[in-house]
Amino acid sequence: MHFYVMTLFPEMVLEGLNTSILGRAAEKNIIAIDAVNIRDYTLDKHNKTDDYPYGGGAGMLMQAQPVYDCYKAIEEKIASNEKTRVLFMTPQGKTFTQQDAIELAGEENLIFLCGHYEGIDQRVLDAIVTDEYSIGDYVLTGGELPAMVMIDSISRMVPGVLGNSQSGENESFQNGLLEYPQYSRPEVWNGVQVPPILLSGDHAKVDAWRLEQSLERTREKRPDLYKAYVEAHPEVLHPKKKKRRKNS
Amino acid sequence: MHFYVMTLFPEMVLEGLNTSILGRAAEKNIIAIDAVNIRDYTLDKHNKTDDYPYGGGAGMLMQAQPVYDCYKAIEEKIASNEKTRVLFMTPQGKTFTQQDAIELAGEENLIFLCGHYEGIDQRVLDAIVTDEYSIGDYVLTGGELPAMVMIDSISRMVPGVLGNSQSGENESFQNGLLEYPQYSRPEVWNGVQVPPILLSGDHAKVDAWRLEQSLERTREKRPDLYKAYVEAHPEVLHPKKKKRRKNS
Repeated sequence: MHFYVMTLFPEMVLEGLNTSILGRAAEKNIIAIDAVNIRDYTLDKHNKTDDYPYGGGAGMLMQAQPVYDCYKAIEEKIASNEKTRVLFMTPQGKTFTQQDAIELAGEENLIFLCGHYEGIDQRVLDAIVTDEYSIGDYVLTGGELPAMVMIDSISRMVPGVLGNSQSGENESFQNGLLEYPQYSRPEVWNGVQVPPILLSGDHAKVDAWRLEQSLERTREKRPDLYKAYVEAHPEVLHPKKKKRRKNS
Repeated sequence: MHFYVMTLFPEMVLEGLNTSILGRAAEKNIIAIDAVNIRDYTLDKHNKTDDYPYGGGAGMLMQAQPVYDCYKAIEEKIASNEKTRVLFMTPQGKTFTQQDAIELAGEENLIFLCGHYEGIDQRVLDAIVTDEYSIGDYVLTGGELPAMVMIDSISRMVPGVLGNSQSGENESFQNGLLEYPQYSRPEVWNGVQVPPILLSGDHAKVDAWRLEQSLERTREKRPDLYKAYVEAHPEVLHPKKKKRRKNS
């Protein structure tokens, strides 16, 4: 899977995605990340990519021309018959979720457009953008961090990127519940002991304890997720009742 | 304002926050960002910071000891009478919003703890973490990107970070509406003209047009924000009606 990032800060994007997991995936050619500098495509003799907004107001806008020509160059490189999706990160967009990460991981190529300054001329957005996403209800200084967040989250869902095939499944959101607490060596740290059941070697009991912990945490911290889960899995609410009925 | 980031990938954090706006603010000493390598505090002779989870399961966990000792070293450096807030980024956390950014921008020091692998031993989380945040309902390979997103968003709200004092106000979420479309030179690009009202020089008309565009976009794309806004500003729904009544 190939990610193209249109940005004024290519080094920031490349460095920021160079962690253990994505770095290894890129080395193994499972994913590729190209950060393309929008500034390389400006026709302005002073290398400018921004100008004042019409109608007045604070800040500068990215102009249409360099963004459009940068996009055209990437499209030529991809040389696909189908139009590649162009994702623009903006507070206006659809809220990005794990379901979007899974869906977007099915694409072969994706282009991310990172805004900066006060925004981008609306005409080039209308001309090239296919999807608008917001990663959350907060404002950032540019589109680079949201693009990095989305690429990280999408990459995890590309087969082969996570070393252990289980790692992508057994965690928050994937099954609709928050994760249970985890413990590693030593058995006693800072005077606190690991819950004894985890040392019991009884896998069925460990699984039951973990599910219970997940349910409890989700009920307390994310009642919305909890409600959806128990509607889909009504048996978790009355496991003991059922057993009693069977025995009576 | 001083940000401390506890991480296994300090370069990634520093590079990723080195954009124009935050870079300038750091140069001017308005903000400072310290990325502290958790690995520097391990007592393990092979420099390991992770181990298997008790009870079995995929992946590795970060152990309590190096995280705790890293935290203690930062606390000593800060040398404040008050406990510094320690933020842990996890899908379990409270959803981070612009209101949190504004609130957290009032702190003098903040410590971010970035998880990696499958998580962190629960005992050290219980011992040091004061706030758990989630930047959205998606899973990432580590806590670095969410920490960077939060630092970017919080920094913008620190006085002096945004060059133009207006820039922080006149945008999405800040007034409860999505931003209006913006246009820059040239007047005609790719056959599309800038909306003539923006060239009229009539500031009152420009402002009215922009508010209308913001309302329309918010109504279409974020009905939740639109509903909250019109409840707080009922006059935007019937501006003409009122005028007619006055004239009759």
